[in-house]
Amino acid sequence: MSQTLSTAASRAELERLLADDVPYGDLTTEALGIGAAWGQMQFFARDPMLLALAEDAAAIIELAGGRVELHATSGTRLAPGAAILTAEGAAAALLKSWKVAQTLIEIWSGVASAARDIVDAATAVSPGPVVACTRKNTPGTKRFAVAAVKAGGAVMHRLGLSETLLVFAEHRGFLGDETLTDTASRLRRGAPEKKLVIEVSSVEAGVAAAEAGFDVIQAEKFVPADIAALMARLAAMPRRPVIAAAGGVNAGNAAAYAQAGADLLVTSSPYLAKPRDVQVRIAPLRR
Amino acid sequence: MSQTLSTAASRAELERLLADDVPYGDLTTEALGIGAAWGQMQFFARDPMLLALAEDAAAIIELAGGRVELHATSGTRLAPGAAILTAEGAAAALLKSWKVAQTLIEIWSGVASAARDIVDAATAVSPGPVVACTRKNTPGTKRFAVAAVKAGGAVMHRLGLSETLLVFAEHRGFLGDETLTDTASRLRRGAPEKKLVIEVSSVEAGVAAAEAGFDVIQAEKFVPADIAALMARLAAMPRRPVIAAAGGVNAGNAAAYAQAGADLLVTSSPYLAKPRDVQVRIAPLRR
Amino acid sequence: MSQTLSTAASRAELERLLADDVPYGDLTTEALGIGAAWGQMQFFARDPMLLALAEDAAAIIELAGGRVELHATSGTRLAPGAAILTAEGAAAALLKSWKVAQTLIEIWSGVASAARDIVDAATAVSPGPVVACTRKNTPGTKRFAVAAVKAGGAVMHRLGLSETLLVFAEHRGFLGDETLTDTASRLRRGAPEKKLVIEVSSVEAGVAAAEAGFDVIQAEKFVPADIAALMARLAAMPRRPVIAAAGGVNAGNAAAYAQAGADLLVTSSPYLAKPRDVQVRIAPLRR
Amino acid sequence: MSQTLSTAASRAELERLLADDVPYGDLTTEALGIGAAWGQMQFFARDPMLLALAEDAAAIIELAGGRVELHATSGTRLAPGAAILTAEGAAAALLKSWKVAQTLIEIWSGVASAARDIVDAATAVSPGPVVACTRKNTPGTKRFAVAAVKAGGAVMHRLGLSETLLVFAEHRGFLGDETLTDTASRLRRGAPEKKLVIEVSSVEAGVAAAEAGFDVIQAEKFVPADIAALMARLAAMPRRPVIAAAGGVNAGNAAAYAQAGADLLVTSSPYLAKPRDVQVRIAPLRR
Amino acid sequence: MSQTLSTAASRAELERLLADDVPYGDLTTEALGIGAAWGQMQFFARDPMLLALAEDAAAIIELAGGRVELHATSGTRLAPGAAILTAEGAAAALLKSWKVAQTLIEIWSGVASAARDIVDAATAVSPGPVVACTRKNTPGTKRFAVAAVKAGGAVMHRLGLSETLLVFAEHRGFLGDETLTDTASRLRRGAPEKKLVIEVSSVEAGVAAAEAGFDVIQAEKFVPADIAALMARLAAMPRRPVIAAAGGVNAGNAAAYAQAGADLLVTSSPYLAKPRDVQVRIAPLRR
Amino acid sequence: MSQTLSTAASRAELERLLADDVPYGDLTTEALGIGAAWGQMQFFARDPMLLALAEDAAAIIELAGGRVELHATSGTRLAPGAAILTAEGAAAALLKSWKVAQTLIEIWSGVASAARDIVDAATAVSPGPVVACTRKNTPGTKRFAVAAVKAGGAVMHRLGLSETLLVFAEHRGFLGDETLTDTASRLRRGAPEKKLVIEVSSVEAGVAAAEAGFDVIQAEKFVPADIAALMARLAAMPRRPVIAAAGGVNAGNAAAYAQAGADLLVTSSPYLAKPRDVQVRIAPLRR
Repeated sequence: MSQTLSTAASRAELERLLADDVPYGDLTTEALGIGAAWGQMQFFARDPMLLALAEDAAAIIELAGGRVELHATSGTRLAPGAAILTAEGAAAALLKSWKVAQTLIEIWSGVASAARDIVDAATAVSPGPVVACTRKNTPGTKRFAVAAVKAGGAVMHRLGLSETLLVFAEHRGFLGDETLTDTASRLRRGAPEKKLVIEVSSVEAGVAAAEAGFDVIQAEKFVPADIAALMARLAAMPRRPVIAAAGGVNAGNAAAYAQAGADLLVTSSPYLAKPRDVQVRIAPLRR
Repeated sequence: MSQTLSTAASRAELERLLADDVPYGDLTTEALGIGAAWGQMQFFARDPMLLALAEDAAAIIELAGGRVELHATSGTRLAPGAAILTAEGAAAALLKSWKVAQTLIEIWSGVASAARDIVDAATAVSPGPVVACTRKNTPGTKRFAVAAVKAGGAVMHRLGLSETLLVFAEHRGFLGDETLTDTASRLRRGAPEKKLVIEVSSVEAGVAAAEAGFDVIQAEKFVPADIAALMARLAAMPRRPVIAAAGGVNAGNAAAYAQAGADLLVTSSPYLAKPRDVQVRIAPLRR
Repeated sequence: MSQTLSTAASRAELERLLADDVPYGDLTTEALGIGAAWGQMQFFARDPMLLALAEDAAAIIELAGGRVELHATSGTRLAPGAAILTAEGAAAALLKSWKVAQTLIEIWSGVASAARDIVDAATAVSPGPVVACTRKNTPGTKRFAVAAVKAGGAVMHRLGLSETLLVFAEHRGFLGDETLTDTASRLRRGAPEKKLVIEVSSVEAGVAAAEAGFDVIQAEKFVPADIAALMARLAAMPRRPVIAAAGGVNAGNAAAYAQAGADLLVTSSPYLAKPRDVQVRIAPLRR
Repeated sequence: MSQTLSTAASRAELERLLADDVPYGDLTTEALGIGAAWGQMQFFARDPMLLALAEDAAAIIELAGGRVELHATSGTRLAPGAAILTAEGAAAALLKSWKVAQTLIEIWSGVASAARDIVDAATAVSPGPVVACTRKNTPGTKRFAVAAVKAGGAVMHRLGLSETLLVFAEHRGFLGDETLTDTASRLRRGAPEKKLVIEVSSVEAGVAAAEAGFDVIQAEKFVPADIAALMARLAAMPRRPVIAAAGGVNAGNAAAYAQAGADLLVTSSPYLAKPRDVQVRIAPLRR
Repeated sequence: MSQTLSTAASRAELERLLADDVPYGDLTTEALGIGAAWGQMQFFARDPMLLALAEDAAAIIELAGGRVELHATSGTRLAPGAAILTAEGAAAALLKSWKVAQTLIEIWSGVASAARDIVDAATAVSPGPVVACTRKNTPGTKRFAVAAVKAGGAVMHRLGLSETLLVFAEHRGFLGDETLTDTASRLRRGAPEKKLVIEVSSVEAGVAAAEAGFDVIQAEKFVPADIAALMARLAAMPRRPVIAAAGGVNAGNAAAYAQAGADLLVTSSPYLAKPRDVQVRIAPLRR
Repeated sequence: MSQTLSTAASRAELERLLADDVPYGDLTTEALGIGAAWGQMQFFARDPMLLALAEDAAAIIELAGGRVELHATSGTRLAPGAAILTAEGAAAALLKSWKVAQTLIEIWSGVASAARDIVDAATAVSPGPVVACTRKNTPGTKRFAVAAVKAGGAVMHRLGLSETLLVFAEHRGFLGDETLTDTASRLRRGAPEKKLVIEVSSVEAGVAAAEAGFDVIQAEKFVPADIAALMARLAAMPRRPVIAAAGGVNAGNAAAYAQAGADLLVTSSPYLAKPRDVQVRIAPLRR
């Protein structure tokens, strides 16, 4: 099966995750002398969830020596009780990979589910904005964070600093008195394949950025009414920029931001989501 | 300064964190042409926090080329507004390392602060139980999770499967009808330097495990009253085992578990903590 | 000095480069017994060059134990004979790092110089198009390729597949009979922060893509006259897309493409550049 | 198939190459929603070529999830239009691995083809010298460079500094007034399993080195006539050393050097070779 | 077969072992032109041995392209002449992996056999102490050392510094005049799930440590008579600590220490064991 | 100081060694609360030894946060009691790096000392053969093994399979009935910069190999008298090959092999050497 598993992480990366948890064997299983017994391990959704990283979890079980049948792929919405995967193998293989595989699904399905909740709230307002998650994931987990965000139906706002142009006030502090228009022109001239994004903190600043030629106005900590005000101010522009609401966006206010007309909701909130519980059953199996 | 920084992660690991976020340079800073300008970056606590991973954050800024003065070390309690660090260097260095360093502190100080809240709640009941955090951290972040847990005044329950003996029902399923006493004897005989830990789901099972000779009874999802009942049942034992409350323990109920007599509170809840905000100020500096 | 060197590669990556060439010591130097003698190593430009990766080369010499003074930073144009760096240290340190450091500068300065030649040719036509280099660098060398491209004054067309939207005919083959307009709408809707790029092979296809709403038309293997024809056809559009000439662009025809009106020249040709020779002088030094 | 693929790089190294290009998924394919469609990808030689690294390219496609049938192995001479490989799999797998696999073959088949051109030119003069490629490959690519050199029928001059004895003038500068004979004796005495190689810049120096007892005289930047002169001078020696022509050797002058009697042609020129084009066809496949 | 091999090291780690020995191909096999010939490679025990790391050795052969049938698993006692494994494949695969696979088994079976000798000597005295091996393995080989120790029937004393509490005199030097009882109390209070281990150098110190409450007394360089004396002194304690004999324990004196009553024998001596010879037969095979 | 330390392993490799032993902090030191106390750690030779890997050990202590003064460099002969290094720093730094640094020196100084014993025994017979150590070091430790062998005054026989030509009977089995002369001619022709080495098991075979043109005859398990016999048989050859005694060579018989006339002693025996004890003193230091 591993042939067809499309995992977010490489095999070498998954081996490291497993070794982080079981660097020198599973002491309890070895001390009990049960490693060679044959068994079955089943993963079920205990909470409702938008499943994520199931392929990587399955690959981890296979790295430990189990054989896995995956019942649902990442991106699938699961009701409580729904089967995720069934593994078979020596008890050593199952017990070794159990918790890493389970935790990986639980944590990232939490993120995916939370992302999806925002997507659902936002798209209840037709057609609704796109939801983009920030790069404020736990450092060292980007491979999984991106996969979970996508499984949840959202996109990544930025993967990092190397591929996007996003001007903060902190940058502008180093620009002296260059006008915003000049800044935008320089950026556009130097990077014609990139959209120019700027973070603003007020409606006025948003209007100024739009007039200066920025492609995306990232409205930081605007209440929905301010988003609506900005949209109104820009309504007359022939080709207005994309308006992104950022800072404090979550499932509770996504609809309001959507209603206010935001094109894009930029959020870090899914990374704070509670893990979704995965129930695991492990039992001996007669071969 | 890097000479004396004691970081949780190795330099090579911190280089990878930085490269995860800035694999091929900081496009915005380069496009704006401000990289060589000299500047200062200051980190302050915005939320009250138990600081964690500040040394690693400082090392990341230094890897990017900044020079850092660290005003507070990990494990320090900070009030809002308290200074964490001041960095100086080329704008390129500061802007490149800013978010990774900030996020690292924010997320893990959240974990440390939450761990400390449980420690404080538990130790309000004198002398109070030890707080131990589980290995259910986000896979791939163990180096940071352990450091944050310790910064918060808690200990690690297990680092992984290789160094501790913890018997779950899932293990016992492979043991046929071996008595608990026989299991404990075998384990003690094979691993005389390890404490024998067992997870139980009822007071009766806890008593049985104690009588069988286990050193630590991990009482899974016991309400405090059940912990108290178990303690009462074991009171007459000449050398009763350590009683660990596990499953659902958090800052809200830690005092109740402590009051009930638990020796140890085993919890994953700090990993769900909200990050603690770090305020960052970046400004040009005349040299 | 290493404190302030801003290298493209991490220290761990540079250690691997050095170990690739000298995995188990420098046999000749050891057999000759000259390792402890003190010496000086100087690097000079032999060819005219646009210097690249000098900081990484210097860091390699320092990893081997030498102390380096860098006389010119990457991105500087050097005449034959110009000094690049002076290193001092034990002969063992100098002889060990010599060729890796030299080759790194030679190869990537070749790339940077070639990129700069295209930039210069293009910008001779005011204001001139931006030059973007493709991701067709030798697999495994992206860290250096990007640095050299930037040192040469060009930009990266794409860092890889994860951060840009570029539709090839190969993608369209899987889209059935979806219209280009529908494709563009779907992409824009899903990725509002990205420019939509499409590769086309004819003027007609370019016009169709522009009308469908793509932001960048990558004109594959157009002769300059075809670029001009496409520009003419798009002249009347209120906000015409960026026109990128790609396929066969080099320093010899860049001016013609610029003259034809291309906004962007996409090229792999700098990766084929001849290395620029660096002259190395190594001599004993009396301490 | 991966079972039997003998690749130059390890699986973990190939995973890194793929991740360099596609660190977080293939954005275009995902945004188009075509990843699950089944397809076929075929690689053909567009240029005549001496194929190299085909096994590694195939392994990369398999890492991405495709199944590959390899029609020609590395070291095979291909005419334009000749099939290299056929892959089948989800569009996601094919589109993700396409360019890395293609570029790997193109670049290194260029090197192999160029090496082979020199081999062919040299061996047209019977029996002809051996062609040895230097270690001046792009730093970080040695695994592939060595494989391409061998595929082209050449050998590696040195893998690095740890396994060969090659005395440059830069070494001799640290030796004071030790005679060449003494140097050779010391080296031979210390390293009886190694051939002693020395670089010389004149016929006289070559004769002196031969008389001093060096096993291989690396004649740096000799014109063919000088090689012939050196051979003539050494003709009377009972067991003359191997004469290696180095510096500026290429396919155009290899025959002349062979004619002049060189035993070995040392060259870096294949690393400058133009990539050989590989044509790729990707199309949906009905399953 | 690799699917079911449970190796001590990860695939990426085994790839590195192979690349350490064969970084750029097997020169002799290539120069002889015999790589494609089909062959068989058989490993037999030449010495009597307790087999270790056979699965990792088999996996290395498979990484090189061979197919392996494993005749005995690690932990098995083998008589001279007993078959370990049979591999089949291209000569290139067999000759490439031969020595690394052979050496891995030879060295670690030496360690396992030596550990087993101590176990056997100790358990000849019923019931006999547990044998624990220290962490004084060659740095960089812990993955294999632990596997060999376990294969030999011993346990690991400590995996490292992060998971055990072992107080040396060197620690106590930093504790000022804190009493041993206070030290033990603080440790027990802070780490209720860990056994408290202390190294002592005299019977008196052992008694004091026992009375202070330590769980394990590591008696450093005690002769067996001193162990017996310590046991006698502790006989009256209601629940005496585990007594571990450490320092100079080996197969020759293990029985004496067992006889003296030690519960645990802590030893580094297996790491000094002579490798056990593995006979390898490689021959062509007609397909 | 780290600036000038020339270590065998890279910083990233040394970080991994340290993390192998102390992955998540030093539990004992932390539990005792003594980490911040200032201290001094001194290493002395307890056994006479040929010091090896002292620079790498010092670098490990520095990675942990200590400052090291190195009193003797690798390759130095030390009498019992001689000082190796003095480190100063927080107790946490010293206690964390203590055992890894100590063990590294002890094990590899054992190897270096044993190599030197053979060198000394061999060179007592003037001028005496070169001593070459095989690649049968513990897999995964080559960086250290090579450094120790060189520190001991020996050379490496082969670094691996990629850089030397050594024909075993196992190769010849795949060569059909090709004559040895033909084999040697093919190899010489293909690899003119390499010496041709062949392993033989009898005097006759040695003579045949010499006549066939091999440069080095590796006489496997010859007793000294057989070496002498082979030398006698080859005495008349105008330029006889290098004779290497291999298989069972050690310090006890090295002089006999030297006396018999062997040019080279090939041995694995130093890898079996007992570690040389290093005494460590750690004590608080008043600042």
